Order: sequence, then structure tokens, then C-alpha cells
Amino acid sequence: MARIIQCVPNFSEGRNKEIIEKIVEEVRIMEEVKLLDYSMDKDHNRTVVTFIGEPEKVILAAFNACKVASELIDMKNHTGEHPRMGATDVIPIIPISDVTMDECVQLSKELGERIGKELNIPVFLYEKSAQTSLRENLADVRRGQYEGMAEKLKDEMWKPDFGPANLNERAGVTAVGARMPLVAFNVNLGTDDINVAKNIAKGVRASSGGFKYCKALGIEIKERNIVQVSMNMVDYTKTPLYRVFDVIEREAKRYGVNVVGSEVVGLLPMAALIDVADYYLRLESFDHSQILEKRMFE
Amino acid sequence: MARIIQCVPNFSEGRNKEIIEKIVEEVRIMEEVKLLDYSMDKDHNRTVVTFIGEPEKVILAAFNACKVASELIDMKNHTGEHPRMGATDVIPIIPISDVTMDECVQLSKELGERIGKELNIPVFLYEKSAQTSLRENLADVRRGQYEGMAEKLKDEMWKPDFGPANLNERAGVTAVGARMPLVAFNVNLGTDDINVAKNIAKGVRASSGGFKYCKALGIEIKERNIVQVSMNMVDYTKTPLYRVFDVIEREAKRYGVNVVGSEVVGLLPMAALIDVADYYLRLESFDHSQILEKRMFE
Repeated sequence: MARIIQCVPNFSEGRNKEIIEKIVEEVRIMEEVKLLDYSMDKDHNRTVVTFIGEPEKVILAAFNACKVASELIDMKNHTGEHPRMGATDVIPIIPISDVTMDECVQLSKELGERIGKELNIPVFLYEKSAQTSLRENLADVRRGQYEGMAEKLKDEMWKPDFGPANLNERAGVTAVGARMPLVAFNVNLGTDDINVAKNIAKGVRASSGGFKYCKALGIEIKERNIVQVSMNMVDYTKTPLYRVFDVIEREAKRYGVNVVGSEVVGLLPMAALIDVADYYLRLESFDHSQILEKRMFE
Repeated sequence: MARIIQCVPNFSEGRNKEIIEKIVEEVRIMEEVKLLDYSMDKDHNRTVVTFIGEPEKVILAAFNACKVASELIDMKNHTGEHPRMGATDVIPIIPISDVTMDECVQLSKELGERIGKELNIPVFLYEKSAQTSLRENLADVRRGQYEGMAEKLKDEMWKPDFGPANLNERAGVTAVGARMPLVAFNVNLGTDDINVAKNIAKGVRASSGGFKYCKALGIEIKERNIVQVSMNMVDYTKTPLYRVFDVIEREAKRYGVNVVGSEVVGLLPMAALIDVADYYLRLESFDHSQILEKRMFE
């Protein structure tokens, strides 16, 4: 497979289709980059754009889109329900295939530096790219939002990683950072007892002592009269799907309940499922380069 | 993922590197086609070339390679241990990604017709492309070999599917046909008792009543002091890896033996492993287009 990263920038415009089309066009015209989706949200006044492709080209498309956003979106006039601090609010850089997290961190720094220098926008590195634990969590970085950023930037602790020391009044502030892809993975249980799902969710999620890279909730699927452990797997390489699935199955048995099925919602990297096959077949020394499709685009 | 087929033509030359390089060059220079491997066998005086890519381009590369082989290889002088009937002996066409078997059959017919017409070589369609059950098995088609083909072609039952009615003395006869990819899949058992592996192999293979698209042998892995069920899965879509694995595991238990691991030898299509993950996770309505890498090249 080719080297692939994903980029999911969030822009602070969700009402003016003309502006969004001009931003998205920068992604659409880039060779070796594939636009997967963009969805405008009127209430949030925000658009999330999803694209994947060759790493350098993805970064270039992200920069170009950010540049157009800085020209067409004026944060001084922005209203919307979603917290935000910049015309290009946040740019996550995500490893998908044959690219390491370290490489994505490096790419995010190059992108951040260019946005700072050439577009004169203060840039914070967040998540895996954060230079201090204070900036790992996007909510902390964005706290105060656009309206509070001029003041926040004066604090020595919130000196931007790149770009000018002071707020860009038109474009605001942008966060750039590398993170793992999220895999939305749900396991359905053959009972209508919500407590079973809630108890199991508690058992597998990091926040209550479970797997470090698993977020989980117990919810009801009323139309099927069953319950579900609804999860976000935030690093499938460290907390693999099969391990969580097996634990849920065993915990469910403790209540006399069966797993009736599971589902992946949305997109996921191939490796997240190949790892599952590798585990259950107990493959010895399987190499992903044995997959024919990976040879095609290497 | 892009639409991908594989092609594995066999040429009746395994000693003259210059000739083979000229044949292989036709694959190497084709855009959207990836040469994966070619291996010359001196005793067989035969070379197997493996390549994958965009279907129309793969067929074009196969035709061009066949044309060069018809110019550079003279079957009148050919000796070698492997049965053969033509300069280009056989051209298997194999669906890998987002291509159906029916499409591969159609492509094989187009290729066969062109070889017949433009290169003046008699062509037999075999395996899934065979127009009569008599020609499904390559060994039946090739019986008599090059030396017997002039006579064989006179038989009304062996009128070629394409090309001249009589033998091309220089290039011989070529078989073209669509088939599924082979997956070499072995399961290792925690015992040194070869009879356990042999009995289980008998249970899972088609020839003794097992799964229709599974060939299996019990063999010893002496250096590890274990035995193995060594298999060729000849249609992973109809006899999936997980089903055979599960049956082997259960049969082994009947002898008090554990499965210690498994292995895939060589290449396989991504779908063969995604199907395994789908089965063990009990995924509900998973679509392969949810795999990010498939979106990249669609």
C-alpha cells in the first residue's frame, strides 16, 4: 500500500457554501489526495473536511485550505455553538498506512511552522505533537475560545509554538497535532438490561480502570430490544479490537448474556481488522506485505 | 481500492536470461501494473512471472509479453522437465480486488481472442473460462504436450477456442483462463504424531469429503517436533479460512491436541483476512468500503 495519512481539519464556517467550496477545492485539486467527505453544520457554523493521501501532498492540501480559510473567514464576525478559536480551528494529522506516529508529529510541526510564518497565524501543537502536557488536550488549548485568545496569548504559558506572539484578529489561532485514528466499535448484547451494558462498559473503558485506549458507554438499542457497549477505540495498535471484544464476551457470560454481534461505524484502517484475523488464526510471523493490495501501491 | 487482477503467465524458457528479461520488460514498463516476481527454473526450462494491476493494463501487458515470447522462444527446440505446450504455456487471470470472476472470464476471452488473431496461436480457454467441462483441468488441455499438439488439434473435440485450427510450430499452443487466487494456509498442531495431522487433513480436504475448495496434507515439521495440516485454499470466498481453521481446532481436540499456530505462505488478497475478522467479531453488515485504504484508490 502507498504511504497514507488522513487529515480532518475543522473550519469555522458552516453556513456559506461558496466559502466552503473554495476551501474544499484546495483538497479536491491536489493529486494523490482523495477527498472523502465534508459536512457543513449550520448550528455549529463549522465544517469538518476529511481527506487521505500521500503524506506530503496531504500536508500541502491542508496548508492551502487553511490559507483560503484565512482569507475568506473573518473570526470577528463568527458565531456558532461549537467551541472554536480560529478560521481553521484545528488540523488533526492521522497515520493510516505505512506511516509512523513520529512521522505524523514531524509533518504536523512542518505544517504548523508554515502556517505560523506564511499566514501569520499563532499555532499551538496539540495531542501527540504537544511540546508540553498542558497542550495535549485540545479542550485546554481552546479554552477561552476566539474571544479570549488575545488575552490568553499574553500568558507566558500559552506562547504559541509557531507564528506571531499576538492574535491574528481575522484568522484567530489554529491547533495542529498528530493523533491516532478513532475506530467506532460497538458490541451488541442479547439482553434488554441496560445495566449489563453499563457495567461492562465500565469494565473495559480507561476512565474506570479498563483498557487505556478505549472509551465506552452502555446504551439501549430500543428498536432491537437489546443493549450495546458503544466504544471509541482511540489507539487500535495498543488496545486492539479483539482484546476488548473477548473481554466483553467473557464479562457478558457472567450475566448469562451472549454477544449477538458487533459493528464498525464509519471508516477504519485496514490494519485494525488484519490484526483481528492475525489474532484469531494465531498466525505465526505474518507480515502485512503479504497482502497483495499492499504490493500494488508500494 | 482500485480494481486489481493478478496474472501469472508461464513461459517455456528458463535458461536464457536475455530472452526472459525482454519478456518481463513488457510487464515492467506498463503503467498501473506492478511486477511482483519472476523466477527462472533451469530444469523445467520455464519461467513464472507474477504481476498485478488495473485489469485492462494487466491484460495488455500479458498480450505484449506473449507476443515477445512468440518471437523469441522456438518450441521446436524446447526441452525441459515440466509439461508444456507453448512458448507462452498458460496465462491464468485472477480476481484480487473489486473485480468479479465473471469479469476475469470475459478478460481471458478477450486476451485469448487477440492472441489467436494477432499472433496466430491456437488458444484453449481453461478453468473458469472453459466452454466445456473437458477443458476445465489444465492437465487435460496440455495432455500430449507440444509434441502431440499437431495431432491433438485435428480432433474435433480439441478444436481451439481461438486462433488457427493448426499448430503454430514455433509458438505452440497457449491456454488462457480465469481462476481464483490460491491461499497457502497451514495450521500447526502441538503433537509429533503425524497421524493426527493426516487424519485431520483427510477430514477437511475436498478429495475425501471435506470442504470443496480445500486441498490438504498432513506433514511433519521435524525441526519443531510438531505436525502440520498444510493446505491450499483454492477459493477463499466459498471455503473461508476461518471455517477450516475452526474445524481443524475442533478435530484436534478430539485427539487431545491443541492448535499452536497457523501461517499464510506467500501473498493473499486482503479480503481473505478481512473475512476472518468479520467472522470472529460477528460484525453486522460490515462493508469493505469502510476500509480507508479502499477509499484511497477507488
